[in-house]
This record gives sequence, structure tokens and C-alpha cells, in this order.
Amino acid sequence: MTEHKKFEEVTISSEMIFKGKIISLQVDQVRLPNGGTASREIVKHPGAVAVIPLLGDKMIVVEQYRKPLEKSQVEIPAGKLDSGEEPLKAALRELEEETGFRTDNIRLVSSFSTSPGFADEIIHLYIAEDLVKGTANPDDDEFLDCEAITLEQAQQYMREGRISDAKTIMAVWAWQLYKLTGQI
Amino acid sequence: MTEHKKFEEVTISSEMIFKGKIISLQVDQVRLPNGGTASREIVKHPGAVAVIPLLGDKMIVVEQYRKPLEKSQVEIPAGKLDSGEEPLKAALRELEEETGFRTDNIRLVSSFSTSPGFADEIIHLYIAEDLVKGTANPDDDEFLDCEAITLEQAQQYMREGRISDAKTIMAVWAWQLYKLTGQI
Repeated sequence: MTEHKKFEEVTISSEMIFKGKIISLQVDQVRLPNGGTASREIVKHPGAVAVIPLLGDKMIVVEQYRKPLEKSQVEIPAGKLDSGEEPLKAALRELEEETGFRTDNIRLVSSFSTSPGFADEIIHLYIAEDLVKGTANPDDDEFLDCEAITLEQAQQYMREGRISDAKTIMAVWAWQLYKLTGQI
Repeated sequence: MTEHKKFEEVTISSEMIFKGKIISLQVDQVRLPNGGTASREIVKHPGAVAVIPLLGDKMIVVEQYRKPLEKSQVEIPAGKLDSGEEPLKAALRELEEETGFRTDNIRLVSSFSTSPGFADEIIHLYIAEDLVKGTANPDDDEFLDCEAITLEQAQQYMREGRISDAKTIMAVWAWQLYKLTGQI
């Protein structure tokens, strides 16, 4: 991937505000293309993986509580990268931990940034097929329900707001395109 | 929309760490469903709008530098909600400011959270058609280039990593589904 630097904002100074368990926050002062200056509030995140797990004509999703939204949400299996962890390995780990399924048939659909205006988080989105039974094993502070839903159910969940996060809507649309065109 | 509270995490205490120009950061201590406790790092964001602007067989995109990613990106027009601003009004404002086009034919495709694990940001995604010329007027610290691209170009930009953020990939897939099925 070529790195495009058009309209580059050069860092003048950078102040670390907070280092947490998952995210950290820094504020950079930058030089703008017109010579002026501005500040940029930047959340640093270790990156994450997400998986579209297809089981026959259904997709496996998990329901969990999302504290920032103060509601539970139906999402595709996902999780943060452990330090130094290879994304594909993390995707297979999260898939089995959260759903109890394994596979040898998994491939990358897209690596995307979630909020390029204020965060560096990248999610690596995989599609997994030919699932076989493994062992579910959620993290200690992770509480979730697992369910297999049809495309029509997924679209209904989107209308109801039970599915409402970017990566899961992307999963539903990618799945629909895959069914319509045979590729994604 | 029904609010689902399954596996609710009840707030025990909340500490405000940082209040910035755009985001703020708080750390909540929560009671887990099993009676244990955990901390949750939460970024608060005012919410944003994004627009899929269709001009004949092309979509209008803007290129700008994204400091958190340290590269420039091609994205659909988007911007934060001003305080108290109605999302539809913000979408029309951002569309005209960034691309110079107006329309009366605009509708909501989806309101989605970008990073439900650590942020409350919601993006309201609209599709706009029947564009007519207005007046471009970017913000003072906003530098961008505007371009109209075909679906094939958009897919090429995705392969090259020039398009790599969630909302713009969603826009491309929604546009492709709209072309294939006549609805989105």
C-alpha cells in the first residue's frame, strides 16, 4: 500500500494524556498545509479482528453489553489483538473463544479504520466458512450469547437497532454481496 | 428502537480524565453480571454525519489528511454534529461545504456506532441523489480535494488502501447493493 501524504500535518509536539488498559490518548500540535497550527486529539488502540462466520445459510453472531452505548448489541465475533499477535491467528482465536467454532477456510475481506478523525484503530475483517465444532471459552469479564441468524433476520435486527455497529453492518452487506455476486 | 440491557454493566463510579475540543475520555468502574467489577475506558464523541453523494454513475469523494493514521485518505463527505444540530441538516451542510453540491433528495441509510467497545460515536449515513451546484466552503483547518469516481475506481481505491475507513467502505458496498437490487 502506497502511503499518501497529501495535505500532510507535521507534528510539532505531542502530549500523552492517558495510558489505559486498552486505549491511550494523546494530543498533538500540528503544522497545517497553509503554515497555521491546530491541535489533534488522538486515541491509540492496539487494533482488532472481526470474523463473518458462515454456517450454511446462517451467520453466527454474539450478543453482549456495550458500556459506551449503555445497551446490549448483536455483533459478529471480534476482539482486540494481543501484543504482537498476528491478525489471522487472533481471528481464529476470537472465533473459537466466542462461538466455539474453528475452521481452516478463512480469508481477509478488508482491513479498515473505524474512526480516522480521532483514532488509529484498525479492524481486520475476515470471512470464515466450513466451520467445525471446537470449544467456546470467553474471557473472564466477557458475557455473551451466541446465535445463528439468516440474512433476513440480520436485516430485521438492523431495522430494530439490535445490530447497529459498523463492522457488523459491513458483515451483513458483505454477506449479501457474496450471496448476490459469488465474491467479496 | 427497544433498548436491550442483557448482561448490563452497572456504573459504580465514573472519572472524567480529559475534556478536549472534540472528544472527552472517562473511565467507569462497573459491576459485571457475575457480581465482579471491571473498568471501562470510554471516549465520548458528539456524533457525526456522512453522505453517499451520487452524481450520475459516480460518487463524490474527498481526499484529506488523517493525523491518527498519518496518511491521506479518500472518504465520503462527513463531519461532526454541531451542538444541538439535527443530523439531516448537518448532512446537507457538510455535503455542500466539502463538495459544493446541494440536494433535496437525501435519505438516511443507517445510524451506526463506529467503535462500540471504547467509544459512543454514532455516524448517521445518508444517500444523496439529484445533486445540484451550490458553494464549497471547507472549515479553516480543513484541506481537501474533491473527486467523482465510478464504482470500479472506488473498488480499485479500496484495493490500494486509499479508501480504507469503515464509513467509506460501507458507502461503496451500499452503492453496489443499490445498483444490484434497486434498494438500500
